[in-house]
Amino acid sequence: MNAAIRAVTRLAYSKSLHVFGFERGWEGLMNDALRTLMPRSVGGIIQLGGTILHTSRSLEFRTPAGIKKAADTLSSEKIDGLIVVGGNGSFEGALALSRETDTLIIGVPASIDNDIYGTEETIGFDTALNTAVNEIDKIRDTAISHERVFIVEVMGRARGFLAVAVGLTVGAEIILVPEVKVDIRKIVARLEENNAKGKRSGIIVAAEGIGDTRKLGEQIEKEAGIEVRLSVLGYAQRGGSPTGRSRLLANLFADKAVELLMKGDGNRIVGLNKGKIASIGLKESCEREKPLSLDLLKLATVLSS
Amino acid sequence: MNAAIRAVTRLAYSKSLHVFGFERGWEGLMNDALRTLMPRSVGGIIQLGGTILHTSRSLEFRTPAGIKKAADTLSSEKIDGLIVVGGNGSFEGALALSRETDTLIIGVPASIDNDIYGTEETIGFDTALNTAVNEIDKIRDTAISHERVFIVEVMGRARGFLAVAVGLTVGAEIILVPEVKVDIRKIVARLEENNAKGKRSGIIVAAEGIGDTRKLGEQIEKEAGIEVRLSVLGYAQRGGSPTGRSRLLANLFADKAVELLMKGDGNRIVGLNKGKIASIGLKESCEREKPLSLDLLKLATVLSS
Amino acid sequence: MNAAIRAVTRLAYSKSLHVFGFERGWEGLMNDALRTLMPRSVGGIIQLGGTILHTSRSLEFRTPAGIKKAADTLSSEKIDGLIVVGGNGSFEGALALSRETDTLIIGVPASIDNDIYGTEETIGFDTALNTAVNEIDKIRDTAISHERVFIVEVMGRARGFLAVAVGLTVGAEIILVPEVKVDIRKIVARLEENNAKGKRSGIIVAAEGIGDTRKLGEQIEKEAGIEVRLSVLGYAQRGGSPTGRSRLLANLFADKAVELLMKGDGNRIVGLNKGKIASIGLKESCEREKPLSLDLLKLATVLSS
Amino acid sequence: MNAAIRAVTRLAYSKSLHVFGFERGWEGLMNDALRTLMPRSVGGIIQLGGTILHTSRSLEFRTPAGIKKAADTLSSEKIDGLIVVGGNGSFEGALALSRETDTLIIGVPASIDNDIYGTEETIGFDTALNTAVNEIDKIRDTAISHERVFIVEVMGRARGFLAVAVGLTVGAEIILVPEVKVDIRKIVARLEENNAKGKRSGIIVAAEGIGDTRKLGEQIEKEAGIEVRLSVLGYAQRGGSPTGRSRLLANLFADKAVELLMKGDGNRIVGLNKGKIASIGLKESCEREKPLSLDLLKLATVLSS
Repeated sequence: MNAAIRAVTRLAYSKSLHVFGFERGWEGLMNDALRTLMPRSVGGIIQLGGTILHTSRSLEFRTPAGIKKAADTLSSEKIDGLIVVGGNGSFEGALALSRETDTLIIGVPASIDNDIYGTEETIGFDTALNTAVNEIDKIRDTAISHERVFIVEVMGRARGFLAVAVGLTVGAEIILVPEVKVDIRKIVARLEENNAKGKRSGIIVAAEGIGDTRKLGEQIEKEAGIEVRLSVLGYAQRGGSPTGRSRLLANLFADKAVELLMKGDGNRIVGLNKGKIASIGLKESCEREKPLSLDLLKLATVLSS
Repeated sequence: MNAAIRAVTRLAYSKSLHVFGFERGWEGLMNDALRTLMPRSVGGIIQLGGTILHTSRSLEFRTPAGIKKAADTLSSEKIDGLIVVGGNGSFEGALALSRETDTLIIGVPASIDNDIYGTEETIGFDTALNTAVNEIDKIRDTAISHERVFIVEVMGRARGFLAVAVGLTVGAEIILVPEVKVDIRKIVARLEENNAKGKRSGIIVAAEGIGDTRKLGEQIEKEAGIEVRLSVLGYAQRGGSPTGRSRLLANLFADKAVELLMKGDGNRIVGLNKGKIASIGLKESCEREKPLSLDLLKLATVLSS
Repeated sequence: MNAAIRAVTRLAYSKSLHVFGFERGWEGLMNDALRTLMPRSVGGIIQLGGTILHTSRSLEFRTPAGIKKAADTLSSEKIDGLIVVGGNGSFEGALALSRETDTLIIGVPASIDNDIYGTEETIGFDTALNTAVNEIDKIRDTAISHERVFIVEVMGRARGFLAVAVGLTVGAEIILVPEVKVDIRKIVARLEENNAKGKRSGIIVAAEGIGDTRKLGEQIEKEAGIEVRLSVLGYAQRGGSPTGRSRLLANLFADKAVELLMKGDGNRIVGLNKGKIASIGLKESCEREKPLSLDLLKLATVLSS
Repeated sequence: MNAAIRAVTRLAYSKSLHVFGFERGWEGLMNDALRTLMPRSVGGIIQLGGTILHTSRSLEFRTPAGIKKAADTLSSEKIDGLIVVGGNGSFEGALALSRETDTLIIGVPASIDNDIYGTEETIGFDTALNTAVNEIDKIRDTAISHERVFIVEVMGRARGFLAVAVGLTVGAEIILVPEVKVDIRKIVARLEENNAKGKRSGIIVAAEGIGDTRKLGEQIEKEAGIEVRLSVLGYAQRGGSPTGRSRLLANLFADKAVELLMKGDGNRIVGLNKGKIASIGLKESCEREKPLSLDLLKLATVLSS
């Protein structure tokens, strides 16, 4: 996110715009807590995880009164354009706000879940992918040395985008996502097949959205008669110095967002479409669901054979 | 490369093909040094840098006699399809070979230089990008603490793709690529402007293709009257555990390569086109030059302001 | 462990000894499953996590019959010296075995828990420390951005060595170890004090040995009226490429172990004592408990103020 | 260094001392540029490379007039104790200054070169070691794939401490340090011996202090008739997030430094002696030369066989 804040600030400043950052996101917007951002005030942050503006999950903002307060700030501070950096929740907030204000709103998709309709990739996804891959490479050392099966739970909220990318790139034996019903018998059959081939260790990558992975592990233990270990990859996936690709996307998305504002084109989100930087309507992004390619899952099955 | 070897082997095996690996690339092909590859023989290699088949730069293969020997091996070993994993040099060899054999040849672009026509990205590029970014983040610590200007030379052979991506994502003050003439006066002016703004440290990312960076540093020192340090990022850029994205590309490229072979479609290279996996003719890839977007350079200039 | 296996093999070979590795540790020893190790067979493994010999937790070995079988293997294979690389459990096994055999036994302490009496540091401890530190640095990004308190559970079995080192080096606000009774009121008081100082985020590093960290988080949430997140750092701590220091210790410990064998000095463990490589009796190591310095905990409290 | 600044600040503050930081080290001391440091002003810096106080190599400070100016600042600002974090050069400056002032001076050894008499390890050494090890692990991927010999030049100024630790832990075939005369014939013999054993790739770790590594590579190429590649590991070794161990040393050294000040015990440097935190006289540290253990070099030779 810092890479996006830096890029928006410097690009907008170069076009003679005044740039402000709202502290703690919606909360700052509702309570008029803003900070002038200058090219120098965003120096040395491109490589930092997190966000210098802080963030919050505001319950008040979800109420009509909260939206009204935010719209009032935009009006009293004479803000012409608002760039919202965040995920689906933030974009739904932005859509609600767009109905109460004339300020141009542009969404910049930043989320490790990669579950936003209208972009092939979100800022932060590549970073989370690599954090998870590095951790699972380490877990596999133990899995192989101890000849044991591990379930590794990765993030992704209700969707399986992160789990598929992680599973495919660590060579997971099995990938479980919310988009496909979990079938214990199939899992057990696969593990037994692997065992028969002399492959005694295994990595099952499970999206957090599939439900209770601890219980799943116990069920597999019972059905397959083997020991199963669980490792929940936690909040480290959300932080850390962003990868080159995440920083690049942040720069390119910010560039497009400022371009849209300069053209007076609001209520859109920027994104990656067919490998190019593009934009779609904010409303469309909120209303549609991004499909998960099951081809990748099939590919993963063959690749881990 | 190992990720690609693993993926090709397992995908081809799943389609009941027999898979062989040629030791040291062209050298093994000329001298009939091949190794049967089975799903198990490529286990545990997805995260390893380098290649289990080794590689070589064969001078003999560049001669008609060398090409003839390779074609003879393909014929005597009854090889129906040959997958060449490599960069421009390998593809030129593949093109020459394709004129002497009926074996279907498919190129899989793997190169940290990202300079192959017909694909938006090559296997290994993202890995090299992140290695360089991590190193320069560390160098910047010293640059800032000592308030000093560093030239950091990155790889990329005759092209600037890696330098642009690296420069843009480390927030380099100046990016120098072979595609744009180096103008010492402009560099000095930029550094003086930064100094006037209170920005006393700086990172100049220079592609190896621009020529002698040591001499460049001395010229800048002389013209600008400041101390300039040089750091040449070396072979570490070519190795290391591949990033998630490089592994993903390897899997997807391998999948496409095997699909083309199964369809009897040869003399092509697979690649990423508009964000999707695609292929173009091997001859076209060899004959055309991939353009470098100068828009990214302009963006970098604003972003580091 | 691989670094130790490599070092033992090459050092022993250089002294004209024959070297064998037992597959899966005790299991291989009981069942005469051994593998000749030559300098070339341990090439390229110094940087790999895990162990090429695999490992197992053998229940049978804990019985007199199991010990007998192992002693028989040592006798029938004419093994003069046995080097046991492992932790407390392995050393207790070694001690039991030493009573049934004349083979010289040397323990090489390898454990991420650093809880072995007779050495200031174990192979693997520094690696686990750095893995945990890197993850918590990432978690702190989120903690600060969201202004939230995190409990991070680290490994260490029944002891707090890893937790103290991790907590001290990530700047944890609170460190909880099994050696000190957990006092919820003190934790809450500390968090409130920090909050009053404007420090709204916090990291509590908790050793796994303190008990149920989930319940602890709920208690703190209830008492302090704040949201608390839990992140359990899992098996990644046990794997991964070893740090320079862990590799160095492996080399030095192996050197000492081979030296002891050559001198005919058995039933000892090697270790680091006052910063130098030394050894103590195996029996003494098993019978005594390594003390945890509480001074470091006090230092951590001041340092995170 | 930041970890040490943080620790000194918080520890001294906890003892009711006022803490100031001098900007750019000696330069700030000569020119009375100081900054009040409070516990909160050193928050969030433990994991950052470099130093928030900046640094400089001051030529003026090396003159009697410069020393005098610094002593005047100490006197006019009524500074009771001065903690100097740095290497040999800084300590020589501190010694000179100690002759012109009554302020208590304590040296805290921070240097990637580990060449300070009076401490077994310096802050930053472990970090540089791991940076170098990680890079060389990547270079070895290329060395093995291409079956080539690499010279890797590491830092260390006039000494070989870093080179020995790096070489021993990456499994270098040859380690070259300034303390031992470079013998080209021996190097060539070793490479030929390895080649005869089937080991076609190799890593030669050379300390920067041995002289021109490029020329060395050319000589080896000529004598041995093989291709040799050179990689100079640059300034990345000086930066980056410190390892757990470097942070730990920073904390412990700072603790000892503040303790010495509180006792009124000046003109000493803190350090690690026989694995424990200790101190010796500043003068003794400056006058004596730390010995390099050649045993480690011999061990490395056997280990890479």
